[in-house]
Amino acid sequence: MRAALFCGPRRIEVGHRPDPKVTAATDAVVRVVLACVCGSDLWYYRGESPHAEGSIGHEFMGVVEEVGDEVAGIQPGDLVVAPFIYSDMSCPHCKNGSTLSCAQGGSFGDGTVDGGQGEAVRVPLAGSTLVRVPGSGHPDQLLRSLLTLSDVMSTGHHAAVSAGVSPGHVVAVVGDGAVGLCAVLAARRLGADRIIALSRHPERQRLAREFGATDIVEARGDQAVQTVLDLTSGIGVDAALECVGTEQAITTAFAIARPGSTVGMVGVPHGEVPVATSFFRNVGRRGGPAPARIYIPELLPDVLEGRLDPGRVLDYETDLDGIGEAYAAMDERRAVKSLVRVGSI
Amino acid sequence: MRAALFCGPRRIEVGHRPDPKVTAATDAVVRVVLACVCGSDLWYYRGESPHAEGSIGHEFMGVVEEVGDEVAGIQPGDLVVAPFIYSDMSCPHCKNGSTLSCAQGGSFGDGTVDGGQGEAVRVPLAGSTLVRVPGSGHPDQLLRSLLTLSDVMSTGHHAAVSAGVSPGHVVAVVGDGAVGLCAVLAARRLGADRIIALSRHPERQRLAREFGATDIVEARGDQAVQTVLDLTSGIGVDAALECVGTEQAITTAFAIARPGSTVGMVGVPHGEVPVATSFFRNVGRRGGPAPARIYIPELLPDVLEGRLDPGRVLDYETDLDGIGEAYAAMDERRAVKSLVRVGSI
Repeated sequence: MRAALFCGPRRIEVGHRPDPKVTAATDAVVRVVLACVCGSDLWYYRGESPHAEGSIGHEFMGVVEEVGDEVAGIQPGDLVVAPFIYSDMSCPHCKNGSTLSCAQGGSFGDGTVDGGQGEAVRVPLAGSTLVRVPGSGHPDQLLRSLLTLSDVMSTGHHAAVSAGVSPGHVVAVVGDGAVGLCAVLAARRLGADRIIALSRHPERQRLAREFGATDIVEARGDQAVQTVLDLTSGIGVDAALECVGTEQAITTAFAIARPGSTVGMVGVPHGEVPVATSFFRNVGRRGGPAPARIYIPELLPDVLEGRLDPGRVLDYETDLDGIGEAYAAMDERRAVKSLVRVGSI
Repeated sequence: MRAALFCGPRRIEVGHRPDPKVTAATDAVVRVVLACVCGSDLWYYRGESPHAEGSIGHEFMGVVEEVGDEVAGIQPGDLVVAPFIYSDMSCPHCKNGSTLSCAQGGSFGDGTVDGGQGEAVRVPLAGSTLVRVPGSGHPDQLLRSLLTLSDVMSTGHHAAVSAGVSPGHVVAVVGDGAVGLCAVLAARRLGADRIIALSRHPERQRLAREFGATDIVEARGDQAVQTVLDLTSGIGVDAALECVGTEQAITTAFAIARPGSTVGMVGVPHGEVPVATSFFRNVGRRGGPAPARIYIPELLPDVLEGRLDPGRVLDYETDLDGIGEAYAAMDERRAVKSLVRVGSI
């Protein structure tokens, strides 16, 4: 099969990989229809973190081609969304809601299992990992939104859940990337009254507003903190969603979080949390990689029924041959998030 | 009046202060009956943090002598417990449960308002700060337990609440000081099934067991982590309560917390949380100084009805003249916590 291959920093090429096959009774093989590029894929693309050379990509959806004897609930021909982690859903960690820590789990496209930016994927633990999409003939925009459940929309939702966003809350979202925009959607869905989006890009501001942001703050650093405090009568927000991971974003999120609140962090942290702005103000921190497999069944009906349209964050589109450009567009911030059309349903 | 005075590191003396008077319509004057020494008092005692010279102590209970015209719900003659922070209970922060951040609030014995380790205290915002104890003729052991609601028991409870301790949970308490022991009590009260106390002092172990600890771990550092993981089938605990604040204690708490759980931190942190043991395992952190004023009404009935006996952490006793020795006993770890008998009811 043809697949995107990581060949070193800024070298994403299309090459050949052996056709995936069912090798364990719990496997399925999925023919990829849509994939996308994750912000975290840019780390190895930029040479900022190590990565095995070879197949890549952990966000995809497709059609089941073959299942092992022990796979229940999934059949050939099913349209499925794959969460970015495969998991058994029966170990203590999965039962506690932490699929990333699954005793048998693992990642796609990490040097062990093929990634989603290719024509097909062998999915381990397929019965407990893949989520079947009911119905057929879904329009393209709906498919794009379903694809985002694989990671980015689930991650935005995780930021909001981790921060305890509740009806009536005043929420701030730090970061206007794809995750931040999805966090705006998630906060609106969970009933936030007011959503302050920190963004300095006109197009992302527009999408944030369409997703439910009521206020836009263009400033950064101390000035952003002051602006959010001014917008909240000096109190701070009930929930700050940190969707970047840089030290400045973390510092901002903790400074605008009101005493007693919790910062929902989903940006991989590249800085520490200053004690003075957290402990003595009783500002907590929760979050990490999202348990997408747990969130997908909860979010799926809202997507299918048109109440949630996170697919709109996919503002760049190409096919497998254009995969290099899909990465470059995000790296150069020409795109919020790149969609890769690999096959058809 | 006579009062304990901080005169520099390791110099706690009994001296004279002007008799407190009602100076604002929202003030009350409380004649102190019982006070105690807080672990945090040892910071300035040891010269590890700065402190204004003069009146000290923030944990006390006593009898109301006089109230200002605008004080409602509290009358002269009432037996009252004072939380360690005074607060208006009507500002946005108080309404959100963060009394430490009260717009009008403040601390006792911090160089502005007299402390509780003296014969009397002017209590600002008295109507919203003091909690009246119903009934009369309470036995001494009950009074000692009521006194702990002022700070140490409320702080142990805050650790458990911040970590989300729920019925059936496996909980670990890091720290066997007075706060840690109260955290054991709090975890039991909130329905924990199993409580693992990290303690290497036989007498504190015994009290921890009497308070509800089901397991004792004597090891420290990596070996403590391994022991707790062994006790929990490698999973970790549902809630880790960090009641020390040293880097080792913080590191241990995060390492034994299971993926997806929250560490309740009430020890003032003297170390950072390592990213690898928190973010990627979705282990959160909540906590800070306890909103004692909010917890006292919830805990008071349990103390009055004999279900909660945190006064047992007070294992050293003296009067105001012995205040220097009350500090020294805790400093030298001869005492878990020192009670100071100042007056009678």
